[in-house]
Amino acid sequence: MTGSLAIVGLGPGASDLQAPRATAALDAATDLVGYETYMARVPQNPGQTRHVTDNREELLRARHALTLAAEGRRVAVVSSGDAGVFAMASAVFEAVEHGNAAWRTLEIEVIPGISAMFAAAARIGAPLGHDFCAISLSDNLKPWDTVLARLRAVAEAGFVIALYNPQSRARPWQLTAAFDLLRTILPPATPVAMATAVSRPDERIEIFTIADADPSRADMRTLVLIGSAATRTIERPGGAWLYSPRGSAA
Amino acid sequence: MTGSLAIVGLGPGASDLQAPRATAALDAATDLVGYETYMARVPQNPGQTRHVTDNREELLRARHALTLAAEGRRVAVVSSGDAGVFAMASAVFEAVEHGNAAWRTLEIEVIPGISAMFAAAARIGAPLGHDFCAISLSDNLKPWDTVLARLRAVAEAGFVIALYNPQSRARPWQLTAAFDLLRTILPPATPVAMATAVSRPDERIEIFTIADADPSRADMRTLVLIGSAATRTIERPGGAWLYSPRGSAA
Repeated sequence: MTGSLAIVGLGPGASDLQAPRATAALDAATDLVGYETYMARVPQNPGQTRHVTDNREELLRARHALTLAAEGRRVAVVSSGDAGVFAMASAVFEAVEHGNAAWRTLEIEVIPGISAMFAAAARIGAPLGHDFCAISLSDNLKPWDTVLARLRAVAEAGFVIALYNPQSRARPWQLTAAFDLLRTILPPATPVAMATAVSRPDERIEIFTIADADPSRADMRTLVLIGSAATRTIERPGGAWLYSPRGSAA
Repeated sequence: MTGSLAIVGLGPGASDLQAPRATAALDAATDLVGYETYMARVPQNPGQTRHVTDNREELLRARHALTLAAEGRRVAVVSSGDAGVFAMASAVFEAVEHGNAAWRTLEIEVIPGISAMFAAAARIGAPLGHDFCAISLSDNLKPWDTVLARLRAVAEAGFVIALYNPQSRARPWQLTAAFDLLRTILPPATPVAMATAVSRPDERIEIFTIADADPSRADMRTLVLIGSAATRTIERPGGAWLYSPRGSAA
């Protein structure tokens, strides 16, 4: 087959945090496929066809992109952050595995990006400075009991925790339940940061402790970072810095 | 104080995976501070002073950079990958916390980058497609028992695992011990990828199962990705793709 598929991570939002390889792949595409919020970040190009879809249809979008590539188009699937982190890359390969055998012969390239987790961490210091993990709080695709078991395992073992998809209008209670569990494991003074729309004009960064963390401050654009017992707060004029020392025992 | 400090992540190696913000910060610096291997990736600029140091002296390097900034210099600390992930950002904030009180008034910016973990994952599909974690196997700064306890916790809970600093000439046994532990927890067919020098001319990607993973293929430039029981292998001409489905139970 002559078509190709690039799965492109745009980074967290600011154009100067988007890798040049991502920009080049978007420029070279004949067709762009993606969720409207992310597509809006890609400059219009009259030579390209834009296929804008709803966010909840990830597998359908992946199949659509693969079908276009199999027809010989140069397709770019547009993803936010890093395309491999709770984003489109996994959906594309899931579609490949269960789809048309010819899709396995397509040229598929994943172009990595700066994830929301790293952009958020950079804005508040170095909270991911030791062992860390990333968990999606969405229970659309996995049982909530699995989420709770994973939260418990990593909090007890001393990981810093990054929470993606903390809550939404359709899922308003997950972050509250996660905090409730974590308060039974972590010291009350453990730092928590909520970073919304990082690197965008409406960016909002708020620092709490696990004791007073307010779930109502989070939405679907929020990345929640929960320190370990080792995470330190450096008080200073203009807002604290958080960091997790490179060495830490559980 | 008028000086400033930027802690810059260069990304995994290829220049087109380095964010424009990182490039701009390097260009604007009067002084560059970093380990020689990473400094070699920054183009020479006759207007800049380069302070090249040995990799093991992270805290000394951080204090040196802060001292220069406090003298009014525009300093860039050069880090590989993302500066906040097992890299220089944590060392800088550790130096700030325990150092000269005036350092807290410095303008310090962390510029995030594409980590080795995400670049490696992108080369083999979407192995980080569900909940995942990152662990440094170095026991220079934390007890080995902590490493083992963390590996056990996340493997049992169904996370994909990214291992940084898997081994070196001075630490030749850690990866073997980690695989030995994981073989008691994970199904024998669980995929393992070793990605060395990702995005560099001498890049090498090898796919194993946990049953046959060969620790001798890893060195300090290797990122090791260990799937969960849910991680899938898509066989195809020219090398398999790995991906972890977005939904997965432990």
